[in-house]
Amino acid sequence: MPAAGARCAGLRRRLPVLRWLPRYSLAWLQLDLMAGLTVGLTVVPQALAYAEVAGLPLQYGLYSSFMGCFVYCFLGTAKDVTLGPTAIMSLLVSSYAFHEPVYAILLTFLSGCVQLAMGLLHLGFLLDFISCPVIKGFTSAASITISFNQVKNILGLQGIPRQFFLQVYETLRRIGETRAGDAVLGLACLAVLAGLRAMKSHLPRAACMESLVARLSYLIVWTSATASQNDYRIDPNQELLALGFANVLGSFVSSYPITGSFGRTAVNAQSGVCTPAGGLVTGALVLLSLAYLTSLFYYIPKAALAAVIISAVVPMFDAGIFRTLWRVKRLDLVPLCVTFLLCFWEVQYGIVAGVLVSGILLLYSIARPPIKVSEGDVLLVQLGSSLHFPAMECLRDAVCSHALAAASPPRSVVLDCCHISSIDYTVVVGLAELRQELRKHGLSLAFCSLQDPVLKVLLSADLEGFQHFPSREEAERCGGAEAGGGGTAPFTSTSESLLLPTGLIQ
Amino acid sequence: MPAAGARCAGLRRRLPVLRWLPRYSLAWLQLDLMAGLTVGLTVVPQALAYAEVAGLPLQYGLYSSFMGCFVYCFLGTAKDVTLGPTAIMSLLVSSYAFHEPVYAILLTFLSGCVQLAMGLLHLGFLLDFISCPVIKGFTSAASITISFNQVKNILGLQGIPRQFFLQVYETLRRIGETRAGDAVLGLACLAVLAGLRAMKSHLPRAACMESLVARLSYLIVWTSATASQNDYRIDPNQELLALGFANVLGSFVSSYPITGSFGRTAVNAQSGVCTPAGGLVTGALVLLSLAYLTSLFYYIPKAALAAVIISAVVPMFDAGIFRTLWRVKRLDLVPLCVTFLLCFWEVQYGIVAGVLVSGILLLYSIARPPIKVSEGDVLLVQLGSSLHFPAMECLRDAVCSHALAAASPPRSVVLDCCHISSIDYTVVVGLAELRQELRKHGLSLAFCSLQDPVLKVLLSADLEGFQHFPSREEAERCGGAEAGGGGTAPFTSTSESLLLPTGLIQ
Repeated sequence: MPAAGARCAGLRRRLPVLRWLPRYSLAWLQLDLMAGLTVGLTVVPQALAYAEVAGLPLQYGLYSSFMGCFVYCFLGTAKDVTLGPTAIMSLLVSSYAFHEPVYAILLTFLSGCVQLAMGLLHLGFLLDFISCPVIKGFTSAASITISFNQVKNILGLQGIPRQFFLQVYETLRRIGETRAGDAVLGLACLAVLAGLRAMKSHLPRAACMESLVARLSYLIVWTSATASQNDYRIDPNQELLALGFANVLGSFVSSYPITGSFGRTAVNAQSGVCTPAGGLVTGALVLLSLAYLTSLFYYIPKAALAAVIISAVVPMFDAGIFRTLWRVKRLDLVPLCVTFLLCFWEVQYGIVAGVLVSGILLLYSIARPPIKVSEGDVLLVQLGSSLHFPAMECLRDAVCSHALAAASPPRSVVLDCCHISSIDYTVVVGLAELRQELRKHGLSLAFCSLQDPVLKVLLSADLEGFQHFPSREEAERCGGAEAGGGGTAPFTSTSESLLLPTGLIQ
Repeated sequence: MPAAGARCAGLRRRLPVLRWLPRYSLAWLQLDLMAGLTVGLTVVPQALAYAEVAGLPLQYGLYSSFMGCFVYCFLGTAKDVTLGPTAIMSLLVSSYAFHEPVYAILLTFLSGCVQLAMGLLHLGFLLDFISCPVIKGFTSAASITISFNQVKNILGLQGIPRQFFLQVYETLRRIGETRAGDAVLGLACLAVLAGLRAMKSHLPRAACMESLVARLSYLIVWTSATASQNDYRIDPNQELLALGFANVLGSFVSSYPITGSFGRTAVNAQSGVCTPAGGLVTGALVLLSLAYLTSLFYYIPKAALAAVIISAVVPMFDAGIFRTLWRVKRLDLVPLCVTFLLCFWEVQYGIVAGVLVSGILLLYSIARPPIKVSEGDVLLVQLGSSLHFPAMECLRDAVCSHALAAASPPRSVVLDCCHISSIDYTVVVGLAELRQELRKHGLSLAFCSLQDPVLKVLLSADLEGFQHFPSREEAERCGGAEAGGGGTAPFTSTSESLLLPTGLIQ
């Protein structure tokens, strides 16, 4: 029986639909229907607009908008996330597809396979290494790039190059060629959309909610967030599996790569969706428009689509983040600025550079932990954080420069390890060498406040003359007594050789 | 005057010769002469042998052996390190030089430029990221590869391929073609060298010293060690500068790339060298042999050189390291084995893979810190180490799964931050989101034992309802009282909103 239970739990983990379907009620159905319909009415114009961003024929936006809804209904762990074409993904696709749908579809299949593999191999944790400043820099830059990319459509200009800087130059140079009809239509659409947004923001709770959910939905896809508005929890690896399946299956229906959408997830949550079943309604609506509306696409003015895109991506720009980081943590401005600036060159380079820069800052902070040295009868050295192998040389330098350069050298050095939770072999070797070096100058080295795993490693390494004390006070008292000539024996020691005169190298 | 003093100190740092030359004495001169002569007598046969390992004409070994001695005398910070051709560097050169000296010399110039740039940009700290298991795996594998590479010379076989596995196969297949003369000479030389080594190891102090200095000299070059046998300290960036200059200047005298030598540094230290001036004597001796002995090189039997090489590199193999790591830290066996095994394919790949693997293990340990959760009136969450951005999701998961899944959910969560020495913006955002999520379920989040830099960051972030206590006991007492309905106000809080009923999302 327990085996069957475990199998059942495993199945429910892989097929989250089984968690909510047995409890499905008529009340939920009503709410899901409404929410699905609302999202559907949002996705149809957005899909057409994003296909334009991706540089593909408009119908490819709709081809990409239904498979995600169906797949997520069965495999998704959050009730309100909606998969489909997004502005940023469309921008990324545009730089690989070269206006050829076949490349975009191949990209869908391949990215789906990568996502499936990551989900199956539980590599979801890799997304944890994309830090907040990188995401902010990337979305802010993308919002500018995507918006400016649409200015040419609002002005009715043609033959503008794709590269951002060339685009800005050409658009400004040829601004005299603006077509009045396009400009009037585009600006009017923008004004209407801005008006609608302003009306909505008079409902403070909803707006706040939207920003929360938008961030959430973003994090789900990009940094595996853990929402728990529902009683089931989001599993980042399962989300990757759902996304991977949606892309692989999508590639068979000419979809370009899809991901979780900020905006529509917010719409979904605000419409009071109860389960991912709302996606079925959205998907059906997209299929219906594909069946009956495609012949009308020809008449959609590009300026109107441009207005839809601009009003969708402008809120993604966060100017306040620069000020916030300056106030809270200036060092984080480095990955932010690197990502933000490089994204204008190529979005991918920006993200990769940002991740590398934040990784380097992270590794540097590990290689140079804060070290506090208090001089006295004993030299007390306290590490502010964990001790990993890249930090060993730095610690050795700090200890030696204080212990050997002091005017009246102390008789013993005590290393306070209370913040160290684990150590590796390189650190063990480094500590042994440090002890040997200090001994050459007639100094002893003792440890205090060792956590259990660290003590175990140090004991198993059989360090010659290893000496440790339960607390800092104990160590200072004994070290001081020893310095005074009292010669109190250490509390715990695997060998007594520490107290013998040093004879290795004179 | 202070400005002149600082300039003088800066000059002494860049030209370490200025530190010891003014104090130079006749007694030092005597010892340096002896040591320089001893190292010179070692370097001449080794240089010829290593040129053979590098696949270059024998004289290139001597071309590579004098510039390092001269340059290090002026720029080096350790008294006993000797720069010159080494077995491992020769192995690396052999895979790039294709038996063409011109490629090797170009490699010398380029690697010198890289080393100079690293020294000038203070990138010496990058060497801290090469961990002990990687060095051990690499030297052990190199010792096997280099030794086996010489077996063909001992047996007098010709036309054996360079790739290790093919080499083993071909050598074993053609073992019947062994030439008796070569084999007798080679084995006799090996026996004599092994005999000399055995005699030396009867002097335990010297042997122990050798292993210490060998490791030291190795670490200087590879992981910037900090020796302080002298009263001046070793500066890794200055060492890189010295090495870079030696290589750049060496490339003008047809040197192949050089580095610090294990063996000869040990010989130097044992001979009682006092200053790097000993190198001048060594360099002069090499120049003399180049002037008068090159015509004799033709008659040196390869089998004898092979014996010199084998007896120099065999001690680098450390079989015990596998057992030691199994006992002390099993996880470190992963980078060790990856480096060791891949080095048989190509040494460079082995080192790069080893560094990557130890970097991944390091990042993983940062992304998944030990988290201790104690349930009670308040849920006490204690992090075992620092909190960097990749660990935020993991912490949020741990807190939520305990706080929301408990049979009798606690009223408040206390995060004990005593081991956290710094936090970044991603963590701040994550903590704010965690607080919001807990609040939705009617739970409060408080912090305790914050270190000053962390408190400063959290205060500057203006977190809504931020609440912290000086100690864990304080937090538990107040949290418990609050849970009991007492409603004690928190000790410090930037806003009182925490105590208001939550109203953001119901």
